[in-house]
Amino acid sequence: MIKLFALYKRPEDVEAFLDHYETVHIPLVRKIPGLKNAVVNRVTGSPMGGEPAYFQIAELQFTDKTAFEAAMASPEFRAAGKDVTSFAGDLVTLLIAEA
Amino acid sequence: MIKLFALYKRPEDVEAFLDHYETVHIPLVRKIPGLKNAVVNRVTGSPMGGEPAYFQIAELQFTDKTAFEAAMASPEFRAAGKDVTSFAGDLVTLLIAEA
Repeated sequence: MIKLFALYKRPEDVEAFLDHYETVHIPLVRKIPGLKNAVVNRVTGSPMGGEPAYFQIAELQFTDKTAFEAAMASPEFRAAGKDVTSFAGDLVTLLIAEA
Repeated sequence: MIKLFALYKRPEDVEAFLDHYETVHIPLVRKIPGLKNAVVNRVTGSPMGGEPAYFQIAELQFTDKTAFEAAMASPEFRAAGKDVTSFAGDLVTLLIAEA
């Protein structure tokens, strides 16, 4: 499986971030062709204590590399990417991973 | 579900890291009571190009908070934690998350 991880640092305005994330961003993500599953993990703490390094970890899951590359080339992927830049450009770290 | 994420920065000696990770660390992790699943995601790149921020993302999955808290209190969890400090203390970021 190929996954696109999006690690979000804590936004200054959590309520505005989550409102945009849930009502605008996730609907755009769900339109990406070939997306198998989208999992949003809300960070609740760190086992070492203190402020956690990230606020949220999202995982976009694709069956294989072919599906992921087709998704990356789609206008829907570009629309979701443009959106994330607009509301979380300075908060997000994106990683491609294989499991 | 409760997840413990371990984000690993790229080690200097990848081969030695993976050898310890696979032959020592993962067997210790699999002994943690109540662990539902352990998923290791190997980072292959960044969609923005350049060096990815992390090398590997591991997810230890637990059914619920009760199972996770019992696991955290176990000697097996402490053994796995002690091990990770020994070989990746300066590479790893740990986060607890809810999905």
